[in-house]
Amino acid sequence: MREAGVTVVRVGESTWSLFEPQDGVFSFEWMDRILDRLHKAGIKVILGTPTYSIPAWMAARHPEVLSQRWDGKQEHYGIRQNMDIYNPTYRRYCERIIRKMMEHFAGHPAIIGYQVDNEVEARKIGNRDYFEGFREYIRSEFGDSLAELNRRWGLNYWGMNINTWDEFYDRPGVTNPSYKLWWERWNRKVTADFLNWQADIVNEYRRPDQFVTHCFMPYFYNIDQVEAFRQMDYPAINIYYTMQDAQDGMWIAYAGDFMRPVCRRGNFLVTETNAQGTGWSSRDQYPPYDGQLRQNMYAMLASGANMVEYWHWATLHYGQETYWRGLLGHDGQPNRVYAEFTRGAAELEKVGKKLVNLKKRNRVAMLFSHDSKHALDFMPYTNGDQYKDYMVYEALYRQNIECDILSVDKVNDFSGYDMLVVPPLYVATDETLQRISDFVEQGGEVVMLYKSCYCNEDDAVRPVLAPGPLAAACGFTYQEFSSIRRLNLRPNDIGAADNTVGTWMEFLCPTTAKPLAYADHEFFGKWPCVTENSFGKGHLTYIGAVPSQELLQKLIARAADRKGIATAERKLRFPIVLRSGTNGDGRGVHYMFNFSAVEQTVAWPFADSESQLDGQKLSRGASVKVGPWGVVVGIE
Amino acid sequence: MREAGVTVVRVGESTWSLFEPQDGVFSFEWMDRILDRLHKAGIKVILGTPTYSIPAWMAARHPEVLSQRWDGKQEHYGIRQNMDIYNPTYRRYCERIIRKMMEHFAGHPAIIGYQVDNEVEARKIGNRDYFEGFREYIRSEFGDSLAELNRRWGLNYWGMNINTWDEFYDRPGVTNPSYKLWWERWNRKVTADFLNWQADIVNEYRRPDQFVTHCFMPYFYNIDQVEAFRQMDYPAINIYYTMQDAQDGMWIAYAGDFMRPVCRRGNFLVTETNAQGTGWSSRDQYPPYDGQLRQNMYAMLASGANMVEYWHWATLHYGQETYWRGLLGHDGQPNRVYAEFTRGAAELEKVGKKLVNLKKRNRVAMLFSHDSKHALDFMPYTNGDQYKDYMVYEALYRQNIECDILSVDKVNDFSGYDMLVVPPLYVATDETLQRISDFVEQGGEVVMLYKSCYCNEDDAVRPVLAPGPLAAACGFTYQEFSSIRRLNLRPNDIGAADNTVGTWMEFLCPTTAKPLAYADHEFFGKWPCVTENSFGKGHLTYIGAVPSQELLQKLIARAADRKGIATAERKLRFPIVLRSGTNGDGRGVHYMFNFSAVEQTVAWPFADSESQLDGQKLSRGASVKVGPWGVVVGIE
Amino acid sequence: MREAGVTVVRVGESTWSLFEPQDGVFSFEWMDRILDRLHKAGIKVILGTPTYSIPAWMAARHPEVLSQRWDGKQEHYGIRQNMDIYNPTYRRYCERIIRKMMEHFAGHPAIIGYQVDNEVEARKIGNRDYFEGFREYIRSEFGDSLAELNRRWGLNYWGMNINTWDEFYDRPGVTNPSYKLWWERWNRKVTADFLNWQADIVNEYRRPDQFVTHCFMPYFYNIDQVEAFRQMDYPAINIYYTMQDAQDGMWIAYAGDFMRPVCRRGNFLVTETNAQGTGWSSRDQYPPYDGQLRQNMYAMLASGANMVEYWHWATLHYGQETYWRGLLGHDGQPNRVYAEFTRGAAELEKVGKKLVNLKKRNRVAMLFSHDSKHALDFMPYTNGDQYKDYMVYEALYRQNIECDILSVDKVNDFSGYDMLVVPPLYVATDETLQRISDFVEQGGEVVMLYKSCYCNEDDAVRPVLAPGPLAAACGFTYQEFSSIRRLNLRPNDIGAADNTVGTWMEFLCPTTAKPLAYADHEFFGKWPCVTENSFGKGHLTYIGAVPSQELLQKLIARAADRKGIATAERKLRFPIVLRSGTNGDGRGVHYMFNFSAVEQTVAWPFADSESQLDGQKLSRGASVKVGPWGVVVGIE
Repeated sequence: MREAGVTVVRVGESTWSLFEPQDGVFSFEWMDRILDRLHKAGIKVILGTPTYSIPAWMAARHPEVLSQRWDGKQEHYGIRQNMDIYNPTYRRYCERIIRKMMEHFAGHPAIIGYQVDNEVEARKIGNRDYFEGFREYIRSEFGDSLAELNRRWGLNYWGMNINTWDEFYDRPGVTNPSYKLWWERWNRKVTADFLNWQADIVNEYRRPDQFVTHCFMPYFYNIDQVEAFRQMDYPAINIYYTMQDAQDGMWIAYAGDFMRPVCRRGNFLVTETNAQGTGWSSRDQYPPYDGQLRQNMYAMLASGANMVEYWHWATLHYGQETYWRGLLGHDGQPNRVYAEFTRGAAELEKVGKKLVNLKKRNRVAMLFSHDSKHALDFMPYTNGDQYKDYMVYEALYRQNIECDILSVDKVNDFSGYDMLVVPPLYVATDETLQRISDFVEQGGEVVMLYKSCYCNEDDAVRPVLAPGPLAAACGFTYQEFSSIRRLNLRPNDIGAADNTVGTWMEFLCPTTAKPLAYADHEFFGKWPCVTENSFGKGHLTYIGAVPSQELLQKLIARAADRKGIATAERKLRFPIVLRSGTNGDGRGVHYMFNFSAVEQTVAWPFADSESQLDGQKLSRGASVKVGPWGVVVGIE
Repeated sequence: MREAGVTVVRVGESTWSLFEPQDGVFSFEWMDRILDRLHKAGIKVILGTPTYSIPAWMAARHPEVLSQRWDGKQEHYGIRQNMDIYNPTYRRYCERIIRKMMEHFAGHPAIIGYQVDNEVEARKIGNRDYFEGFREYIRSEFGDSLAELNRRWGLNYWGMNINTWDEFYDRPGVTNPSYKLWWERWNRKVTADFLNWQADIVNEYRRPDQFVTHCFMPYFYNIDQVEAFRQMDYPAINIYYTMQDAQDGMWIAYAGDFMRPVCRRGNFLVTETNAQGTGWSSRDQYPPYDGQLRQNMYAMLASGANMVEYWHWATLHYGQETYWRGLLGHDGQPNRVYAEFTRGAAELEKVGKKLVNLKKRNRVAMLFSHDSKHALDFMPYTNGDQYKDYMVYEALYRQNIECDILSVDKVNDFSGYDMLVVPPLYVATDETLQRISDFVEQGGEVVMLYKSCYCNEDDAVRPVLAPGPLAAACGFTYQEFSSIRRLNLRPNDIGAADNTVGTWMEFLCPTTAKPLAYADHEFFGKWPCVTENSFGKGHLTYIGAVPSQELLQKLIARAADRKGIATAERKLRFPIVLRSGTNGDGRGVHYMFNFSAVEQTVAWPFADSESQLDGQKLSRGASVKVGPWGVVVGIE
Repeated sequence: MREAGVTVVRVGESTWSLFEPQDGVFSFEWMDRILDRLHKAGIKVILGTPTYSIPAWMAARHPEVLSQRWDGKQEHYGIRQNMDIYNPTYRRYCERIIRKMMEHFAGHPAIIGYQVDNEVEARKIGNRDYFEGFREYIRSEFGDSLAELNRRWGLNYWGMNINTWDEFYDRPGVTNPSYKLWWERWNRKVTADFLNWQADIVNEYRRPDQFVTHCFMPYFYNIDQVEAFRQMDYPAINIYYTMQDAQDGMWIAYAGDFMRPVCRRGNFLVTETNAQGTGWSSRDQYPPYDGQLRQNMYAMLASGANMVEYWHWATLHYGQETYWRGLLGHDGQPNRVYAEFTRGAAELEKVGKKLVNLKKRNRVAMLFSHDSKHALDFMPYTNGDQYKDYMVYEALYRQNIECDILSVDKVNDFSGYDMLVVPPLYVATDETLQRISDFVEQGGEVVMLYKSCYCNEDDAVRPVLAPGPLAAACGFTYQEFSSIRRLNLRPNDIGAADNTVGTWMEFLCPTTAKPLAYADHEFFGKWPCVTENSFGKGHLTYIGAVPSQELLQKLIARAADRKGIATAERKLRFPIVLRSGTNGDGRGVHYMFNFSAVEQTVAWPFADSESQLDGQKLSRGASVKVGPWGVVVGIE
């Protein structure tokens, strides 16, 4: 490892049954040996609490800790993450092993931090205790008022109102969207509480120089990031993606743009990412082309990561993850990927200190809504993905507009931004909508998609002309909508060659808004499907149908033009991707990626910089070559 | 409502938990207020018994009333129609609430009738009591004879014969088709018994001027219409369909042609139909194009409806049916659909009395077999739809041949008709087949499809040369059949451009029948796949393969030509659809629909009439214009 | 039957509830009557034990014998093969009925043999007793050592190691591939033990002139053929396939080539094959074209069958198998298929004695690995079929290379062969691999596919450079692999027009091997995907990707050329199929099939022979005509 350039490793996260082979019998010596060897080699360690995979003896003795999923599946032993994380018996065992481990290991000099659990989320847990917790949560949130509950959730429909708390019914048969939305909130709350509870225990023991983290998968909608990361200096994510021809850096950029705003210090860790092929079978093995592993390493730094760890060092010869391959393959010998890792590690050894702690001051924010994501899944308007956040993000990414992704319910102030891009904000409070309205009025640009503003925070539709509280800012109302097949738009000045919309269309009736596009259809063409409204000092562009990717890009560009956002960067486009920020020394750091197999020559769009990887000068406007799957890193 | 032209509403059907918020605690005042207001406005009311959605307290206290489906699914609370309708506890609670409601409401002057339950059918109920009921039913139907049961169902195969009634096995593991068919009969019987039981209770209280109804979904194969409608003057149906480009009126016509013959008075009610978009999600929202809502209203009257109600007045803001939208949308304000409803309502105010109580004397009947529908599903010969009743109906509908749809097992006499069209009559008694044979012999025309006559009433194959009792009338026998891909036919004089068959083919060996068509295939071409037989004074056309829609139409037309059926009407074709009958004054009523977006000009094929909607003269043979999604209604 | 030419029938196999209508009450007279009638007609009988379908009274009284499948499905009564064949209660009832039957019937002169059970395999049985049997089996196989178990299965991963045998966890939640593989071995062991246990009982009673058999479906991977057939002179198979245009004889040939090597006497029985259409519905009815039934009968004899029985004589009129049609259809009268059967039977009456007891001395063997088949399914590298044994067999069959199919773990010696063809041998012992290496070194030709040699006998990956023990014989090592889309190969001298590979590719790094083909791709083209290595006196051809069918044929032909294998036969190709052997008299027997609808004229490639079906001379090199779906049988 030392030879390869590894400087930090994670250990311990799924080894509960080795630390505690029998109930109350502990064994830590084997890990002591590992830590001592790592320390001797100068390699730092993040020690994980092992709670995401229970020992066999626990399942045998306390089968009630296994998850009884509300979709009817009973979990069995033989896999990880099969338990009810809310269960008190499970929690009691968790607490004991964490305390024992902390007592034993906290003083070890190799340890720089602790990871509590791993990729936790509530995986359809439906155990009785979990449901009862939900009922108490609702009781508390609704001030113990069944009348309030019945009213806000509309339970009178189909006569499913509740008249005593004992009648409050369990999740499996539920059809009511309000109930479902609150259930998802409960899932997020339990997950965050669980992490904070573990962090509290670890905090009793850890040294001041040690941090606490947790690694999430970037399926952000199941996590309350703000609450879950509350006690963590460095939240972490595990980013997996497809390499080879599909490598585009977008999933990395998305994850980073999501994480930065919710990190206390503005930077995060990457605790896992692809080494060689990934997957629970050998069906999807896509080892990187030459250059891709290193390129992705820089892509993570360019998004704000302060660490890049790979999953994992060596590859297992047995078990479910036999084909989730590490830097070393099954043979345990150096290989092509190992060589590329070593090259990257050597480069970071030289320039890494200047790249970490990257900060960004983006002018554009994309608003993310956990509630809208879930609520649209309950009431789908199409097949597959409903929320389309990734489609919207792509429209920014492909034209080099950097953004922050903000959890809409957790942010009180958009004033630091010039432009908001809004995927279907189906569920939102009046306050949030007022905040968006104010943002426009005060001069902001908003590009907003269909179905926004439709429901209140209980996932109940607002009983007013859509788009309700945003009608003035939008400059239209609507009463009707329709599923549609893909429709051509009549000629317009938006300028998209793929001049189409599809899937869904709202029949917008402009009051003050200017129609930008109409479907070329006898019936649907009676209403515009894209409008632009001047409201106060700003503009709100509304897209009342699912636009083509190109149409969406053009509409965003149109708004960006008005603000002069990313004017230079937007002249370059994917496969050239630009990412910038300011390092700890306050100097501008610029990344130029080439996400293609063909060398690109482009004009350097930034201030004069020094290329960190080859020492060359990068002058504004001068030609720069970026090789296949290559990257240029300049610092001003 | 009054302003809009609403004259009747339904209330109460899913509000059990409002009428009885706790076990034995009743509350009717809130409905009194509603009824009084409606009465004051001159709007009539149909009051529903609320039994299709149980209160939460019942599920909490008596979980055994929830359906344990025989396919393994356990129903939970949180949705309607999740209970075992045969369960005595459920029935006891039903009876109490119905009696309490009738005691309270029966005298209210606004109430013109009662709807018992809603869209009831046995939804895979498999509770123990339900199964035991089935066993007793079989015991009774088979004269308590296990020997008879084993013999008729062929239970000796795989040694699954039953030697005591205690061994009689439950539905879940059953593979025997005879058992399955009888289980479906049990489902239909329980459903009908349940409705008659409710009607009996209501009848104890209702005024003579009040009627009893129930609304079905037009999936007719799960209902014993004759038994279920036995006590109802006006059975009702809820017809939902796709509008916009898919609007063709066919589902409405099919439903009407099915209902009329089973209605004691020959007319039925439509209790629900599309207002705006329908669906349990927003995925399939197809609000009507201009004119379509009104067109469909007339289509229902043209099929024999005496009332058209929409589901529903306003749109819900919460719950599973948030996107099942009413005449008013979420905003509660007048809109495009509301305006069209109001136009239609105003027209009916003027001419409605002359349109209701429509009677038809059709010369053609289509034979519908509940048993064949189910039995073919147990032993499919293709993917998807097996019974093809809708394909056959379409062949009539598209060329303006009106028909009655007869439940083949409930009709003893076809003598009123000139022609029978028979979808795969896979299961039938000898008596039914003899009746068809007699019909041909006495001069009738029969067009019959493959697989007819194959099984007896126990779904056991007849142990004789197919088509068994109909061999003489058919004029062929066959021993073999094969799955086939789509095959061209050799040139013939049927005249279909799409001269093909597919999916299935019987190897017909004519005795007296005349071959009409052969496959153009070395092997399959050895046997005809369509024959025509003169038998007595009539003809039987047999189609031993799945024909193209056009081929089927031509074969039906060929038979219709011999009888001179719908000669004038058949000159017009879809999108022009003609529907006729006689109103209460004994006058001819004629509807001409244009199911397209393009205005049509056609010659009026009926006797001179007066156009009801614009007062113009309609002279036989004179040109009539029918606008896009338009209708002309003439009365002689 | 006698008139039709039937000489042997099977009876009794699924009639337990007729033999024992109540617990302990027996009835055999009805079968006596049948046996006497058959005997009188000179028809021989194979009597089946009825244990594969339990009586209803057993399920009612002992529901615990029903299978509780480990995938969560609870079996119910109403179908056959729904029980836990390891259950002691079930076994006790089995033993009693078998003993009673043998006591009663063993002396009957019509009976020539006994069939124990029918198509038995462990169908996801997961009952507690079955699992406990597995645990004891593992305990025994691992010398009661949990340390050994944890180490070899790698259970430390995810902390799922086991510290007492009580913690050993059940199958449902298992993800560990080693556990899964051993579970499959347990399934095969239980199945074989069950058959041997039944055979032991039957052997106590049977006459010396009577044999014992069992009929399998040819899904060979769930059966331990060697152990299961240990006590059987004539194992039997039930071969079903699609006729009509799809008839190609390949499934029959595959089944025969698999069975011959595991039959003690070298010949087997066919107890069931298609008569008319087959299938549990009427969806897949493909009755034979003229000639096909007879052609397939000879195809079975040509593969080593000593008997061909059809399923079944007559067709059922009820039950699940209504459309699994016999020689006689539902009408019970002679028909086209019956006529063809009769023709074939008459031919066999004359020449059958010269055709049975066919022996083959093939120079090519295909290695079959039960473990590899299962292990690849646990860790799939593609969708659908992983093991591709049938793809490999096809490459031999289409060019008339006959082979034996050997269960690789049961054969100690390949020295009788000149060439081995090896589908992905993913799991193998070091000993097996050494044996293959020795075979090459001593002059053999081996054609081996990707993923071979990767795992040891516990399904754990070997921790060395792939292909591990075979690296020297292969002449390369590799460290990497990738999923790929279909890729063209660069021009090469293999000679396949379809010069492509797909799905999966290993990055082979030749040491001594000669590259034969490279992908035409910037990245993947850096490594050969087909190599050929001279090792000792032989060659090993390795295909490190999924080849096109044609490419595979060419690579096999290339190796066959070096050995002069099937040189004459390979000049002819499908649809002409050649099958040869030696009959009981030591004379060469040659079959020439035409699996097409078009008559073929070809040169007779064998020594001078006499055509058995028409008495003509067949001279080497002289033209022979083979009619559509025809066959020529020559004996030297």
